[in-house]
Amino acid sequence: MSLLEDLKWRYATKKMNGERIPAEKLNYILEAARLAPSSSGLQPYKVIVISDRALLAKIREVAFNQSQVTDCSHLLVFAAWDGYNEERITRVFNYTMDQRGLPYQTMADYKQNLLAMYEPLGQEWHAHHASKQSYIAFAMAIAAAAEQRVDATPIEGFNAEQLDELLQLKGSGYRSTVLLPLGYRQESEDWLVNMKKVRTPLEDFASELTLADLTGAADKAPTE
Amino acid sequence: MSLLEDLKWRYATKKMNGERIPAEKLNYILEAARLAPSSSGLQPYKVIVISDRALLAKIREVAFNQSQVTDCSHLLVFAAWDGYNEERITRVFNYTMDQRGLPYQTMADYKQNLLAMYEPLGQEWHAHHASKQSYIAFAMAIAAAAEQRVDATPIEGFNAEQLDELLQLKGSGYRSTVLLPLGYRQESEDWLVNMKKVRTPLEDFASELTLADLTGAADKAPTE
Repeated sequence: MSLLEDLKWRYATKKMNGERIPAEKLNYILEAARLAPSSSGLQPYKVIVISDRALLAKIREVAFNQSQVTDCSHLLVFAAWDGYNEERITRVFNYTMDQRGLPYQTMADYKQNLLAMYEPLGQEWHAHHASKQSYIAFAMAIAAAAEQRVDATPIEGFNAEQLDELLQLKGSGYRSTVLLPLGYRQESEDWLVNMKKVRTPLEDFASELTLADLTGAADKAPTE
Repeated sequence: MSLLEDLKWRYATKKMNGERIPAEKLNYILEAARLAPSSSGLQPYKVIVISDRALLAKIREVAFNQSQVTDCSHLLVFAAWDGYNEERITRVFNYTMDQRGLPYQTMADYKQNLLAMYEPLGQEWHAHHASKQSYIAFAMAIAAAAEQRVDATPIEGFNAEQLDELLQLKGSGYRSTVLLPLGYRQESEDWLVNMKKVRTPLEDFASELTLADLTGAADKAPTE
């Protein structure tokens, strides 16, 4: 198996069958998310794991009634910091220094530079930036689920305000960013399962660039 | 090998040795990014691949002089749409329908709903949203590089305005979002290579939640 094979296998499952995934697969997927890299190693996010049917039913109401929310085995709710501040950053950096047996002072200059850079950008920029970090962890969870042959549906279609209200995230310093129901496909009722996976052709997706391309030096080169 | 092993192997390489990575590994990494899922399948991003030393030297100037930018084999510049609009969405959806042999009309309602949802959110929200999608592809590239035992350094520390200027992205509809130099570690000069990988402990990172936790029903349950 390889990541490419896993990514070809996966698809955004439209209909799940309600079966439970084994605990070891859930843990594997969470561990992949936990090991994801993040900006300055801050990991400004967490994952709320929900398998309680009563709560899933309520979440479905604020997620455009998407059936995967209640037909999944477990729903992962990714939630990111609503902003950066000295206290939050210090807590993470000090923990890192503890784990590495280094003095807290080691990261003092780095921290001050980071705060000076973040401070003027404002709360909404902070929230978007932390959210982006959560997408890296989210992607690792998607890849891990595929590797474990667990179906998953990346879901951005939900009312984040209402979900934050429901999950009592308001005032916690976190905002929900993205959802990942995990489970198993119900093939007979899934319109997407047999559709061709379509992606931007490689030649449009990725292109090489040189300085000569930009300056037109190649064009201006003498031809004689 | 497994994704978890790959994620434990990788680290944000601080010093690279300038060696080239084979073309097949580069292509594998780009293919993983290309196969990443994205919101509504829009893939509102692309990757600019740079190995030209002259251009890398200029990019390093707008990336806080980070050595990986010039010591890498290839630099991947992820760039995302600066906004959503009907023309861009239609182009992607029509291509998807072509590939699936379905009439364009199939996605007409979905498209109108999407446009109605995006339109009031404004250009900055659009750019952030498209950028988030690029982070999923970015994460897949990180995972793919690790699987291929290619070192990589996720880099957000660069001046996006200046990079967009340099790469002549202004007016192209794309903005640079994040960088990924690919190459090989220079162990003897890399302060991070032997440091312990530190992550939020699992118990803080992920937690189960039920409706009873939220309503306090568990507390209120009769104890007699």
